[in-house]
Amino acid sequence: MAASDYNKEPSRASDFTINQTTPFNAEPPVAILREHFVTANDKFYVRNHAPVPLIDEASYKLSVEGLIARHCKFSIWELKHSFPQHTVMATLMCAGNRRTEMSDIKAVRGVGWGCAAISNAVWKGPRLRDVLFMAGIEKLESLWDQLHVDFEGIDICKDKRGYGSSIPLHKALEKRGDVILAVEMNGSELPRDHGYPVRVIVPGYIGARSVKWLKTITIQMHESTNYYQKKDYKLFLPEVDWDTVDELWDKSPAIQELNVQAAITQPRDNEMIPKGSSYTVKGYALSGGGRKITRVDISFDGGKSWKVANMFTASQNLPKMDTKWSWEFWECSVKFMPSPCQIICRAWDEGSNTMPENIHQIWNLRGVMNNSWVRVNVVSDEAKL
Amino acid sequence: MAASDYNKEPSRASDFTINQTTPFNAEPPVAILREHFVTANDKFYVRNHAPVPLIDEASYKLSVEGLIARHCKFSIWELKHSFPQHTVMATLMCAGNRRTEMSDIKAVRGVGWGCAAISNAVWKGPRLRDVLFMAGIEKLESLWDQLHVDFEGIDICKDKRGYGSSIPLHKALEKRGDVILAVEMNGSELPRDHGYPVRVIVPGYIGARSVKWLKTITIQMHESTNYYQKKDYKLFLPEVDWDTVDELWDKSPAIQELNVQAAITQPRDNEMIPKGSSYTVKGYALSGGGRKITRVDISFDGGKSWKVANMFTASQNLPKMDTKWSWEFWECSVKFMPSPCQIICRAWDEGSNTMPENIHQIWNLRGVMNNSWVRVNVVSDEAKL
Repeated sequence: MAASDYNKEPSRASDFTINQTTPFNAEPPVAILREHFVTANDKFYVRNHAPVPLIDEASYKLSVEGLIARHCKFSIWELKHSFPQHTVMATLMCAGNRRTEMSDIKAVRGVGWGCAAISNAVWKGPRLRDVLFMAGIEKLESLWDQLHVDFEGIDICKDKRGYGSSIPLHKALEKRGDVILAVEMNGSELPRDHGYPVRVIVPGYIGARSVKWLKTITIQMHESTNYYQKKDYKLFLPEVDWDTVDELWDKSPAIQELNVQAAITQPRDNEMIPKGSSYTVKGYALSGGGRKITRVDISFDGGKSWKVANMFTASQNLPKMDTKWSWEFWECSVKFMPSPCQIICRAWDEGSNTMPENIHQIWNLRGVMNNSWVRVNVVSDEAKL
Repeated sequence: MAASDYNKEPSRASDFTINQTTPFNAEPPVAILREHFVTANDKFYVRNHAPVPLIDEASYKLSVEGLIARHCKFSIWELKHSFPQHTVMATLMCAGNRRTEMSDIKAVRGVGWGCAAISNAVWKGPRLRDVLFMAGIEKLESLWDQLHVDFEGIDICKDKRGYGSSIPLHKALEKRGDVILAVEMNGSELPRDHGYPVRVIVPGYIGARSVKWLKTITIQMHESTNYYQKKDYKLFLPEVDWDTVDELWDKSPAIQELNVQAAITQPRDNEMIPKGSSYTVKGYALSGGGRKITRVDISFDGGKSWKVANMFTASQNLPKMDTKWSWEFWECSVKFMPSPCQIICRAWDEGSNTMPENIHQIWNLRGVMNNSWVRVNVVSDEAKL
């Protein structure tokens, strides 16, 4: 990509941590992120793979093609007015969230991320299933379990193709799957950084499947052949390196659903905290596939004992909305914290799964899906003296 | 329960390990279990909570009641002939599978189980959704996300009620959820130990939700008030004991979906294995919610390095059938095994979740959902000399 391709990037908040400038990849300050259950559009983490395309809504058409009875093209006006509009609150998280903790152990390839490659928004647009039924997907019912929905964006990435990904058709067709073609984000049109004019939202899956600047939807018998489905976003053993990974890409499944994840947003690692007074630890937790967080445990003694954190999504004064795709906010107060102290956090989800204790055991060369126990080291200010 | 209530138990295989006689709880030899991808009816683990009821099929009726338009009663003949018959291959696993490993650390309350409280069968019967639509569930569509399906059995358990449980209605209504009212198990009528004449099969959930000897299905706004939904099958921190648990039952969610799980079936713990020749480690793995196992890792050096095991469900010459509710069989050959050696196994599923390293960290007073790393200790026979 030439530097000049990045001449038309949108303006961005000044307080983001920029992990990569071209393409632009940046995360908001974690303390601000944790203040609002629904993230403001200009505080939502940005994960781009290419220059942000400049799209003229007047000439824009979304194409639906492949193994489907009626190939169709839809304008934004048609997406907004020819289908019922569905609202979904969904937290998106990059598979690379918390990657820097992995690269601190051993180098990985990929954009470095702290724990703020995650944000929550209210998305609105037609359900993908309604669009697919309009295009005649019911005629393929006997194949539904074998079909995939391929998404390709307008941005030009690897191999001179648009960024692309796919999901199994059944995820798109499940009414409770809540996959939509978002034309609104928190009540406004999508910002350019978040896929203007249309982004598919695949709740419960890694952010990589919620393709931005959507150009084409293709129904097909195989998953996407795009680089980002086939040669990225896969999990390998810690001993797999760049010399041995080549033959493994095709044998390894693409990551789709998020795993159970959490972060401590207060205090930050190496923070100095007041001695002798009570302290409230805060953070978020999230799992994939619509599985709610069932418990968040905090330890102040290396995992010898645990306290259950309070979760309070229910008290957030949210519009009456399904929260199964959203993160949980939690907090845990402690009267006395030893100094120095490693605060540990682990979450559990409705599938009775929890987070791995040891990051070395899940380290992988792309640094994805790091959901090891969260460990934040603090000292009280007196200890410094 | 009086001893005489157990006078009419069915006959059982002689090679089972009996973990409790009244009620009868027993598991098959693991080596036999691992020989057949579909478990024979008389080798299927038995988990009963009460005497096995003697049921006269001629007078038996299944009742559908509660918040539903048409209260109905169905005979076995009607269940078999008034609805399309649906076949599902599903592995059932008791939430207490591998409990003995937990009680080896610290006493737990519950029937002791090795790693064979799991079996796989092909079940057949009407879909629960078809039965519910026959009873008018479509009239409650606006409440679907809030409703529960309560099941009660004919067996008399705690509080003089039938064994009972519930699942969220949406699980019952999802076509891909595959919940059926099984009247056949592996091509035969259900054996008495497995719920004759009707057992609900809830694939991907803990075995406790697949209620046997089904008497009543009730549609209601709350989950089951049965002991086995409210005061059992829940997860707590290791530090919660019988003095502190009382106030926690109501605050803690009932376990529904299985977590990611595995076992080594060959060799067995403390087995002597031939020295100097290659050896094949074998086992199974399973996850919940229809999430397939994506990888099984084996370590012979305490988790310092791992080998990926071969999975071979696909080569099992099975009838063409969806395997998303079934366990995986795996094996891993090694040329040289140190002696002594602790063989470790962990599995991963489609939700990118894996098994916890340390059993102490997930120990709980009921000993449920133990999916810690599997650890089997062996010595080669020369080391013995």
